[in-house]
Amino acid sequence: MVPHLITALTGPINELEQRVLDSMPAIERWFRLEWMEHTPPFYASVDIRNAGFKLAPVATNLFPTGWGNLTPQMLPLAVQAAMAAIEKICPEARNLLLVPKNGELSSFCLESLMQLQRIFNMAGLNVRLGSIDPAVKKTTTLTLQNGETLTLEPVIRGKRRLGLKDFDPCTILLNNDLSAGVPGILEEIFEQYLLPPLHASWPTRRKSKHFKAYEEVAKRLGKLMGVDPWLINPLFDKCEEVDLEQPAGMDCLRVQVDAVLTRVRRKYKEYGIKEKPFVVVKADHATHELGIVTVRDAKDMQVLTDRVKAITQGRKKPLLPHGFMVQEGVLTQERVNDAVAEPVIYTMDRYVVGGFYRVHAGRGMDENLNAPGSGYVPLAFEHSTLLPQPGVKPGASVPNRFYMYGVVGRLAMLAASYELEATDPDAENDE
Amino acid sequence: MVPHLITALTGPINELEQRVLDSMPAIERWFRLEWMEHTPPFYASVDIRNAGFKLAPVATNLFPTGWGNLTPQMLPLAVQAAMAAIEKICPEARNLLLVPKNGELSSFCLESLMQLQRIFNMAGLNVRLGSIDPAVKKTTTLTLQNGETLTLEPVIRGKRRLGLKDFDPCTILLNNDLSAGVPGILEEIFEQYLLPPLHASWPTRRKSKHFKAYEEVAKRLGKLMGVDPWLINPLFDKCEEVDLEQPAGMDCLRVQVDAVLTRVRRKYKEYGIKEKPFVVVKADHATHELGIVTVRDAKDMQVLTDRVKAITQGRKKPLLPHGFMVQEGVLTQERVNDAVAEPVIYTMDRYVVGGFYRVHAGRGMDENLNAPGSGYVPLAFEHSTLLPQPGVKPGASVPNRFYMYGVVGRLAMLAASYELEATDPDAENDE
Repeated sequence: MVPHLITALTGPINELEQRVLDSMPAIERWFRLEWMEHTPPFYASVDIRNAGFKLAPVATNLFPTGWGNLTPQMLPLAVQAAMAAIEKICPEARNLLLVPKNGELSSFCLESLMQLQRIFNMAGLNVRLGSIDPAVKKTTTLTLQNGETLTLEPVIRGKRRLGLKDFDPCTILLNNDLSAGVPGILEEIFEQYLLPPLHASWPTRRKSKHFKAYEEVAKRLGKLMGVDPWLINPLFDKCEEVDLEQPAGMDCLRVQVDAVLTRVRRKYKEYGIKEKPFVVVKADHATHELGIVTVRDAKDMQVLTDRVKAITQGRKKPLLPHGFMVQEGVLTQERVNDAVAEPVIYTMDRYVVGGFYRVHAGRGMDENLNAPGSGYVPLAFEHSTLLPQPGVKPGASVPNRFYMYGVVGRLAMLAASYELEATDPDAENDE
Repeated sequence: MVPHLITALTGPINELEQRVLDSMPAIERWFRLEWMEHTPPFYASVDIRNAGFKLAPVATNLFPTGWGNLTPQMLPLAVQAAMAAIEKICPEARNLLLVPKNGELSSFCLESLMQLQRIFNMAGLNVRLGSIDPAVKKTTTLTLQNGETLTLEPVIRGKRRLGLKDFDPCTILLNNDLSAGVPGILEEIFEQYLLPPLHASWPTRRKSKHFKAYEEVAKRLGKLMGVDPWLINPLFDKCEEVDLEQPAGMDCLRVQVDAVLTRVRRKYKEYGIKEKPFVVVKADHATHELGIVTVRDAKDMQVLTDRVKAITQGRKKPLLPHGFMVQEGVLTQERVNDAVAEPVIYTMDRYVVGGFYRVHAGRGMDENLNAPGSGYVPLAFEHSTLLPQPGVKPGASVPNRFYMYGVVGRLAMLAASYELEATDPDAENDE
């Protein structure tokens, strides 16, 4: 189940949406059974695009930093989920060390940390913030825009444990995706729970692995609902070892862009969709200076070439070879005050605990919105007196349109769970 | 953690309340550890009285029927908790049979059943209503005040299973406290989950057993918070085999009323409380025709004698001997629109999922409010932008006064868990 939030989309419910709503008990049971076999990521945020005819995740973040965008009314859900997560992993926990990312923390980030501290505090833990940034050498007070303050302390690494001065946590909650690599200070911590595990961070993760796992679970959910899995799954392919500075370095990308576009075009034709297909090219691991590039035609890779030129110009250190992913672009039909918007779903343990819209007035419906200039619009709970109920007479209840976002968000979370199992260095290979 | 609901009480926070709020992380951790060892009742409602200086549960219902009073905004919490409960007990469940009480179902009851159906449906189960009332012989459509309908079907008992026509549930959810005794139709169901178990119903339960267990857990929580357990525990004693029709039949009651009043008086003196102590006399099991009687003085049992006379007059069948409980009366300081009010806390699995006020304009602050003429006022979520956070500057956050009700509610739920363990006929006695 997913909270009933007011979505921006208000048009008639289409076939896919109806199928998702009608399949609710079967979908919930399926998730329930999946979570018996697989461990959900500790927390996650999933960016979703709703093209109307198609609904799909485009990015799954395992170290979400937008908790500040959840409204106070959603907090009890997050706390309840946090309690469930803590109970399963470390019920005896008393102290929790929250590790934010390195570098300067934006006000957006501070609000998120404050909210996380609040959530875990209400779940029954003493929470303190410890930085692993070598630049943080002494205790610092950080002031939020509303005047509240957070205390950031430098972590102290013992032989086998990580902590703060006079604070020995049994659980460490990473809110740092470790894009720059796993620092030694986090290695060989055998006596404490480190959540999420290190292999959930970018040095190990690959987007293509995640979407490969997503493709599998989407196929199974599609079968369960009786819909073509493509309606919830973005097609993709990957290019390993792309060397952007070699003339032939982009050949692989060109081939894959063409291949993915061809597959999308075929699907659009099958469904009579008149929109122009597009793909997005993005780094397979973490973020790349190149950013996320929208390409509409394999013959016209100019936009990519231009971007490469711009970042290589006058550069001394060469760009290293890199893996890229070519992903089917999913249009977003959602608008908040005329600005293009995409829902972002927040999960903790196996539960959807809230969501908000990412909006970007300067971007088009086929562009990446997670870029400078984006804003966030919290979703409110639906205050209608009735929740959707199959079988009630039409008009008696407002359908929970947010439900389908919650389903797709959890599907991405399930994919992350498969992904993490496959990359777990400690996993026993009992096949 | 407990949702932040707006309470009727708005005065300054007293010492007890402050102690509860300050002990939040320790309290939550304690509950977490308790739930590792003990199984929470499937669902419960707890009536709480807040005398200002003292806060205590006065009744714990293990078959709550006021679900209709929870606001739509609370539903996601209930659904999340229902998912957790189902996952633990019967994750593979697909169909759930909901069994309401026998006899005519009031509109209050119908709304509650509708809400329960909705909650478990959203948790991923097909829910149908089956009556065990022998008077229900065919499928009946029941119409709620808002025009929605519920379908009530007669149950069909197989050799080992209970179900409906074309509906074979793996789980049966009793919403019937079986006051009249356990019917044969519910016995020897070995292949299905029957929730709550039969020994949670009134033929087995005794209020005095519940409050004995509550006394124990209140002592432990009191120690944890550093407060006198009396501040959260109503004193009580019991009389077994009271025969109201014999002249000496009430002797035991008189002695116990005096004893409990003396103990309460001593406590009032210790704390400098100026109010007049009182006790309530109630049946130890289910409800008795006698009702719940407030007694202010052992010498003046007239009110009880009058009540007995009223119900025995002109009666052919004698009143049977019966067990009674004499419980310290707890004043309620809460008012909703000038009417005396008491909070009712709803729990599912280990979670507080909502609450409401029971109000009764015609009753005093020392009287039972669960009586004809009572009304219900749903509690709304606090919409302030900030939730309570220890350490934030005063005024920056609204304290969650509902939190302490949630703590006491869960303490009663924990007591019920101990109580059910002690009365479980299938328990292995491995001492």
